[in-house]
Amino acid sequence: MSETGPGQVRRSSTRLDSYVDRYAARTQGMTASEIRALFSVASRPEVVSLAGGMPNISGLPLDVVGKAVSTLVRDHGAVAMQYGSGQGDPRLREQICDVMRLEGVEAHPDDVVVTVGSQQAVDLVTRIFCDPGDVVICEAPSYVGALGVFRAYEVDVVHAEMDRHGLVPDALRQAIAATRAAGKRIKFLYTIPNYHNPAGVSLSPERRAEVLEICREADILILEDNPYGLLGFGDEPHRALRADEAEGVIYLGSFSKTFAPGFRVGWALAPHAVREKLVLAQESATLCPPSFSQMVVSAYLESHDWQGQVKEFREMYRERRDALLEALEDMMPPTASWTVPDGGFYVWLTLPEGLDAKAMLPRAVTARVAYVPGTAFYADGFGARSMRLSYCYPTPERIREGVRRLVGVIEEELELHQTFGTAGRPGVGRGYESPNTDLT
Amino acid sequence: MSETGPGQVRRSSTRLDSYVDRYAARTQGMTASEIRALFSVASRPEVVSLAGGMPNISGLPLDVVGKAVSTLVRDHGAVAMQYGSGQGDPRLREQICDVMRLEGVEAHPDDVVVTVGSQQAVDLVTRIFCDPGDVVICEAPSYVGALGVFRAYEVDVVHAEMDRHGLVPDALRQAIAATRAAGKRIKFLYTIPNYHNPAGVSLSPERRAEVLEICREADILILEDNPYGLLGFGDEPHRALRADEAEGVIYLGSFSKTFAPGFRVGWALAPHAVREKLVLAQESATLCPPSFSQMVVSAYLESHDWQGQVKEFREMYRERRDALLEALEDMMPPTASWTVPDGGFYVWLTLPEGLDAKAMLPRAVTARVAYVPGTAFYADGFGARSMRLSYCYPTPERIREGVRRLVGVIEEELELHQTFGTAGRPGVGRGYESPNTDLT
Repeated sequence: MSETGPGQVRRSSTRLDSYVDRYAARTQGMTASEIRALFSVASRPEVVSLAGGMPNISGLPLDVVGKAVSTLVRDHGAVAMQYGSGQGDPRLREQICDVMRLEGVEAHPDDVVVTVGSQQAVDLVTRIFCDPGDVVICEAPSYVGALGVFRAYEVDVVHAEMDRHGLVPDALRQAIAATRAAGKRIKFLYTIPNYHNPAGVSLSPERRAEVLEICREADILILEDNPYGLLGFGDEPHRALRADEAEGVIYLGSFSKTFAPGFRVGWALAPHAVREKLVLAQESATLCPPSFSQMVVSAYLESHDWQGQVKEFREMYRERRDALLEALEDMMPPTASWTVPDGGFYVWLTLPEGLDAKAMLPRAVTARVAYVPGTAFYADGFGARSMRLSYCYPTPERIREGVRRLVGVIEEELELHQTFGTAGRPGVGRGYESPNTDLT
Repeated sequence: MSETGPGQVRRSSTRLDSYVDRYAARTQGMTASEIRALFSVASRPEVVSLAGGMPNISGLPLDVVGKAVSTLVRDHGAVAMQYGSGQGDPRLREQICDVMRLEGVEAHPDDVVVTVGSQQAVDLVTRIFCDPGDVVICEAPSYVGALGVFRAYEVDVVHAEMDRHGLVPDALRQAIAATRAAGKRIKFLYTIPNYHNPAGVSLSPERRAEVLEICREADILILEDNPYGLLGFGDEPHRALRADEAEGVIYLGSFSKTFAPGFRVGWALAPHAVREKLVLAQESATLCPPSFSQMVVSAYLESHDWQGQVKEFREMYRERRDALLEALEDMMPPTASWTVPDGGFYVWLTLPEGLDAKAMLPRAVTARVAYVPGTAFYADGFGARSMRLSYCYPTPERIREGVRRLVGVIEEELELHQTFGTAGRPGVGRGYESPNTDLT
């Protein structure tokens, strides 16, 4: 067996996949998301990206973080750089309980599991609950990263409609009934009650009680994903579903938007028996989450007015939301419609009839504006007429410029559409019955 | 739906698992490892723990790390705290290629995927390749954390014997033939060629070529797990399997032992098509590995004589290995036997006939010494007469004291055994045919 040089390695390995018939069945479901394919284009500086969901962390006090981190290394380096508990740092889990208390959640640190971002929490919950063919009920539309996890575990997603007040209780009832009538097993409802990604709406207080009641009666676990909960534009955070139901809800939280995503620190709060399984799953997946990241987050929470910082983030994001909504009001054709978020990062926009957001994307990128087509947020091909617009990262000026470019593209599309119709245009004609048109 | 107080939450949630009939089939395979149950006991200061595999990082220069980290925050904080690429930091992937070159591996950074410790790499490789019922061939014994992953993916482990020169080629041939004759599908060979955990042996150079040849002929992928590769006590690192076979080997590495485990930075080097699947799996599992951790590791490699530090680690571990081997020579009864590692952290000890390491453990812990019973390292109940002794963490003095205590327990057991025989003693009588008795 002779040594293979690097050139040869590259040549032989890039051409074909000799393992193609050996992958697990689940690997068929792992495909590059529409968002991912966009990133390389959207990150070019001349493009106004309304596509990404990156938080704007330029306001973070680097001096405070730098000091917290060097103190951590000096005073606790040997612990911070060592293996830790599979469940996560005990002090951080106490602080996480303090954070959740702001949304009405009373919990014990022993029921918290720290995860590598809340993405990993979605993965671990799905791992312990879902066999191939099991059903998870999701809002329509739903978070692209969660849909990717469900696909990777060969889960069948059943969507339930939303409107401007969030998940529609009757749609949830129907989804449960239809799924059970089809003889399928529902493992949980995956829901983002606050400042929904991508829909930009929040579940109303009345509906929170109703959704909890429906799931309790139907004996369905709720996976409450809440990365944006403290980034509301109102006076008080919305009350978490978990605040009113401890046994039937797994709550997921994250420091990615209230502090910074680069540490990858999220968590799951789960009923005690489920928490035990999550710890075993975490140990199998990573042995333990990174001690160093956790202790940096803990030191930051301890040493800084982090709630003051979150207030600054909220004001910054509100200004950007206002810029986006004003630009849409000023420039969009009257047949387009969109949601009005009361927090978070996203507006869901529905195009005039006859247009297709996915088909239009290359022309938009040519016009130097990017967004995510609505189909990315559906497991079933719906959403073609819609798109997600993110206002979190670009400045208000850039947002207005982005909308100006987007409107230019839409008007050209409308003109083409009125002249030639949709016949023969790739992608057009799918998804018009999408429930997302009810969102606005 | 009324608010539930924290007291009530705890009471209702700790008693029973109302979700017991809802978990996925794979969750049955997630059980607390024998090592894990030990940790709470073994970490008491009065116990000499020869159980854990924690590296001794007390020699790390905290001033260097502290300075690297605060410079990182000051100069690159906005990037280090932001989301990164799912594949991992490009600069770090270049440095990883430099590290692997020390073991003869020529690779391109584009074929490296950064993982949350190499544990996550085992998880992701298994995720993309293994359906329930698929077979992975493992050495006997094998790494407990990998066996846990295989169990969690409902993989059937088939063990192949080792001796003092590592995996026995004929045993590998037989395992392949027997598995295929039984109509089962082999997805890969999982092997730790260097300073094996737990066996403490290394694959000889002649056998490396032979194992590669067997797997090439049988068209079987090799998963080469190499966390200890740079911690050998000889002059030069062993040559990696991957150095002589690029297309048939996935190589896993880690900074947990050469730098520090608390950052959880490991990696997989894979054939290009497999690497693409691994990135998709990583994005689904965590979106991306922690940017901050990666950039700290990168800055440490850049700013410090890390190879000089590894040399110091090697000398420290060699001194501890010598202390353990000398103590075993001096004190162990002649009917016990053990392996002589040329690197890494572990010695595999086989007890005199008639003794059972698992049954003996409570008595050992009472005598204030801890080890991991051999059964933890087998998927099939073998290993009862053996144990793993770790010399990585305790000082040489503590190691000698630990062996003294252990020998006291063994001698008492031998006396009991000679007086009463093994009849009726719990656990005794299993595993005597274990292949591990060939290891010594």
